[in-house]
Amino acid sequence: MKYYIGVDGGGSNLRVALVDETMHLLREVVRGKANPNTLGIQQASDRIQQALREITEGFHEPIRAVGIGISGAPKAIAEKWLRDTVKAVLPFAEVVPSSDEEIALVGANGERRGVLVLSGTGSIAHGANDAGESLTIGGWGYLMGDKGSGYWLGMQALEAYIRHEDGTDTRPTSLVERVRQQCGFKDRFDIIPWLYQPAPDSSKVARLAPLVLEEAQAGDAHARHIVEEGAAELALLAQTIVRRLHITQPRYAFAGSLLTHPTPLAEALCRRLRLPAPPQPRYTPLIGAALLARLTVDPV
Amino acid sequence: MKYYIGVDGGGSNLRVALVDETMHLLREVVRGKANPNTLGIQQASDRIQQALREITEGFHEPIRAVGIGISGAPKAIAEKWLRDTVKAVLPFAEVVPSSDEEIALVGANGERRGVLVLSGTGSIAHGANDAGESLTIGGWGYLMGDKGSGYWLGMQALEAYIRHEDGTDTRPTSLVERVRQQCGFKDRFDIIPWLYQPAPDSSKVARLAPLVLEEAQAGDAHARHIVEEGAAELALLAQTIVRRLHITQPRYAFAGSLLTHPTPLAEALCRRLRLPAPPQPRYTPLIGAALLARLTVDPV
Repeated sequence: MKYYIGVDGGGSNLRVALVDETMHLLREVVRGKANPNTLGIQQASDRIQQALREITEGFHEPIRAVGIGISGAPKAIAEKWLRDTVKAVLPFAEVVPSSDEEIALVGANGERRGVLVLSGTGSIAHGANDAGESLTIGGWGYLMGDKGSGYWLGMQALEAYIRHEDGTDTRPTSLVERVRQQCGFKDRFDIIPWLYQPAPDSSKVARLAPLVLEEAQAGDAHARHIVEEGAAELALLAQTIVRRLHITQPRYAFAGSLLTHPTPLAEALCRRLRLPAPPQPRYTPLIGAALLARLTVDPV
Repeated sequence: MKYYIGVDGGGSNLRVALVDETMHLLREVVRGKANPNTLGIQQASDRIQQALREITEGFHEPIRAVGIGISGAPKAIAEKWLRDTVKAVLPFAEVVPSSDEEIALVGANGERRGVLVLSGTGSIAHGANDAGESLTIGGWGYLMGDKGSGYWLGMQALEAYIRHEDGTDTRPTSLVERVRQQCGFKDRFDIIPWLYQPAPDSSKVARLAPLVLEEAQAGDAHARHIVEEGAAELALLAQTIVRRLHITQPRYAFAGSLLTHPTPLAEALCRRLRLPAPPQPRYTPLIGAALLARLTVDPV
């Protein structure tokens, strides 16, 4: 029996899993965030290494390979860093540096192939074809839109609010009142400190996304329009990957909080991609990281 | 003869003018910025007071009234602050607290009436009707779009670039190459630090606006589309003011660097507002502040 480790440093926690070659989970460790952009490279390394030590403590079989994807550390940039970080603890294991998106795709589809669309606070898409070529698009961050993401949905809700306040849009919508209530806006000027002080915060804006989804569900025309526009943008990401990688039978996967629950956004995206229902992932991104390690070093 | 002072604290400099009742300029003082949001209230007051002392030094006629508009200090909020700041130096002058937009409108039209559209780094519109009612809309800051502004034009140029890089938009456009050159982007990832580090900077983005205007002039379809969309947004601001203030014969004024030169944006806005040419201002906002003071305390 061979053993593999998966490391998933995306989203809100660092997760490490020890699995056997059938992807059966033997041990799991969960820690705080490991994003090198916020923690710094050194502290992110320390945290990953500590979790690796913990999960292998008292485990006497050799670890064949470690698959690792850390959010905020794109594969091309972080390859050497991830390799060095893991090798310092497990010098004899193979290291397979990866990214958030890749381990999510491999986990969801159980193979390194298909098209993943992610919509959480931000949005990004990743794909891989039969020839082994892969591609990541979107994910430009909150200022450039990350269209179809929670931040974007929240900003559309705020825009509905200011256009109503200005009177530049007079169409009736129940969304504006919900925004006013949730944000506690008493007068026109309250949105300025809410949005800009102390500093723009993309998660705060993304927390308005559920309003848009609920109002869309309830039938508000404005909210439905926003959801359709968001789904169109996410579909465009997915279809661009299909086109650029010449994928003929795309196997889609969804990731991120806005697509892995049965939301109007997930439904609208399914319609545009002609899927009967949101695709269900085979494994989590964490197991995806371990599976990626196995697929890379022990291809069957 | 009566004498008035105008104070214009908008844009990049604090300007103070001393004029007679015919708006003939007797003295002018120019200082650095006086924005209370960046300087702090106290230092902004000090700077304004020093400029007032300087312009009245050795001038022995009484000052009848001071009109004052400071950027970053909306009229409703700053009224008491502006009054106290001026009264400390000129206790016998009437004080007419105003705003950037209002002194620009009064200056441009020579009366407290009409509709002003401003597009610089940001965008805003202000109007006043015959009944003395006034209204300001837009001006929500860079995150909420300030559509038709320099920041917005720059972001559209950056969006053209990322959509080209992603391949989600494959239409040919010469704008993308200009963006790449001006920003020095060598690969896909270079835009992330450019845009987000050390912190988002709206003027840096707005400095891409001339590219869009030049490319629109040269005939690039993408750039022309951006300019038309920006002009439509600015026209919507102006028309909303006309509608909400029930103005029947709107007298339009333009302000801000993108509209006070003969740009494609100014031309497109003229077409939408059915103006033969960009309206020429009668006075500067600085003289507008002094004129506002006269119109308020000595209505003819």
